[in-house]
Amino acid sequence: MNQQMDGENMQADFRRIAVLGAGSWGTTFAKVLGDAALARGDHAAHVTVWARRAEAAEEINGEHTNVRYLPDIALPRNVSATVDAAEALQGAALVILAIPAQSLREQLREVSSAVEPGAVVVSLMKGLERGTDARMSEVIMQELAIAPEHLAVVSGPNLALEIAREEPTASVVAAADESVATAVAQAASAPYFRPYTNTDVAGVELGGIVKNVIALAVGICDGMGMGDNTKASVITRGLAETTRLALSLGGRLETMAGLSGLGDLVATCSSPLSRNRTAGRLLGEGRTRDQVAEAMTQTAEGVKSAPAVLHLAAQRGIEMPITEAVVAVLEGQITPEQMGARLLGRDLKSERPAKETH
Amino acid sequence: MNQQMDGENMQADFRRIAVLGAGSWGTTFAKVLGDAALARGDHAAHVTVWARRAEAAEEINGEHTNVRYLPDIALPRNVSATVDAAEALQGAALVILAIPAQSLREQLREVSSAVEPGAVVVSLMKGLERGTDARMSEVIMQELAIAPEHLAVVSGPNLALEIAREEPTASVVAAADESVATAVAQAASAPYFRPYTNTDVAGVELGGIVKNVIALAVGICDGMGMGDNTKASVITRGLAETTRLALSLGGRLETMAGLSGLGDLVATCSSPLSRNRTAGRLLGEGRTRDQVAEAMTQTAEGVKSAPAVLHLAAQRGIEMPITEAVVAVLEGQITPEQMGARLLGRDLKSERPAKETH
Repeated sequence: MNQQMDGENMQADFRRIAVLGAGSWGTTFAKVLGDAALARGDHAAHVTVWARRAEAAEEINGEHTNVRYLPDIALPRNVSATVDAAEALQGAALVILAIPAQSLREQLREVSSAVEPGAVVVSLMKGLERGTDARMSEVIMQELAIAPEHLAVVSGPNLALEIAREEPTASVVAAADESVATAVAQAASAPYFRPYTNTDVAGVELGGIVKNVIALAVGICDGMGMGDNTKASVITRGLAETTRLALSLGGRLETMAGLSGLGDLVATCSSPLSRNRTAGRLLGEGRTRDQVAEAMTQTAEGVKSAPAVLHLAAQRGIEMPITEAVVAVLEGQITPEQMGARLLGRDLKSERPAKETH
Repeated sequence: MNQQMDGENMQADFRRIAVLGAGSWGTTFAKVLGDAALARGDHAAHVTVWARRAEAAEEINGEHTNVRYLPDIALPRNVSATVDAAEALQGAALVILAIPAQSLREQLREVSSAVEPGAVVVSLMKGLERGTDARMSEVIMQELAIAPEHLAVVSGPNLALEIAREEPTASVVAAADESVATAVAQAASAPYFRPYTNTDVAGVELGGIVKNVIALAVGICDGMGMGDNTKASVITRGLAETTRLALSLGGRLETMAGLSGLGDLVATCSSPLSRNRTAGRLLGEGRTRDQVAEAMTQTAEGVKSAPAVLHLAAQRGIEMPITEAVVAVLEGQITPEQMGARLLGRDLKSERPAKETH
């Protein structure tokens, strides 16, 4: 039998959807999927969220809210929750993963036997696994033993709280198989959420990973009181180094210039809602990495991924001066002031990348 | 005799510099040039600003300030001003033009006879001439009859007030002749201002022109209360349409991804100091073009250039949906709400530009 399904058949199969993870992005995406089903008149579709905390599951089922992460947001009636991952996964042809990057592998090992054979698995996660430098799609394929064509990633200028508030948002669904990307995009098309498709999984994923590191750098500039000229330069050069890394891993230039590259970077670096930018700002104001971790309730993924990004880049022979400077600040090797001088103090030279020497 | 000078000889010649225009960017750039000379220990260099208003010239000479445009900023002692353009231009081997785009041609006709033969002329201006769709470099070459290799343009993430406050800023000097770009970059290298060189004059100029139109679009979104997800999407697609136009005019992709393309766009769209973003916000709040013009003390160049950009794009067969929507809002043909629906309501599709149909 042909494993390859076309978009329409797949969408019919996507009536039972599991979302693993009840943080801000997982809960928001469950709402998007629920609202999308209602918008297309599919009243049989159901989204089950796996929450680790019993109170979170009870609140989603009883109050249709998750106030810890999404204050003042009501979830649609076709979204429910459970603390039992196997229950969420049973019969689910579409599985959404929204689990912290650094604990993904361990958690997938606990639930892998409950994932339906042939299910399409979608990663919402942004980060590199420490120790292995693996992207989330790689961890998923290793631990769930699924074929590359059953995997998709979603990334874009997607601040979760804005989407939860139903502010108009575009996004990108990437899958090696365009029909899988289209089916996932259709399942997630809510009136306020518009996913575009792409087949460049590595490029889309890399954009989402490195933008957190660049947002730390922009936040550090912010914390030091630097202006928009400087921050715009850091964003520009940050995208340039992200693009160099992505191209070396098979990503495409146009992906990096698109919504999941430039778009996500600009949204993250502009928004007061960004955890990574906030963490950077605290670093720029002079706090240490430990003090920043203490001051924040949710993880700033860039703090964990930055050394892995730098390590991956070094292995590919790619220069990433901004990432390198962020890692040095995080490790207390240089002060934010020294980072500023390092990034801005280079000699006059041509702007063209071919001539860059750093 | 060879007209081509190397960077060092040219820099020596750049000891007498004229800046035509005493607005915020012209005055700021005069300060940069003055500070640059002092920083390299060149105490013979002098910058003369041509101001149309006698009070402005007197204030620059007497108080070393230009409080109308740069409150709380002190100009260096090697910057003076005059109301006599010929006096400013006498002996000046480097001529900086910072004149409103729509009156440039007329003003150049008044002063052209006073420009020294062989002088390098630098455009700081951003806009297309209405009626002709000409870029500022084209107007300059037509009116001053100078050779392309004696022309340079400066553009980048360069909010003037931040530079005047000596916040670290990078910029791009573009000239067809790299040695001219290098000489101008050296003359303008202040401790807080770092110009990079590029030979893509058309690309650098186009980035600076169209970003004002995209900033209007982002401002309109802002005025309607839209979030950072939406604004980041508009920036991303705005750069894509800017790039399409620039490539059709001989610009280069890497220029558009650099400081004068992406960098300038992000700085302008992020900053409360941007006049174009402010004008857009007022439009998004429901004011008409005339009401916006009345509410603002300085021109928002994008309001004037937008129709010319759209006209130029149409002539080249380039689709610019954001520019088109901005023009329609400016002309009162659609409301900001209709613009939002038009930009966000397109069907699901692949993100890849090759497949875009708009």
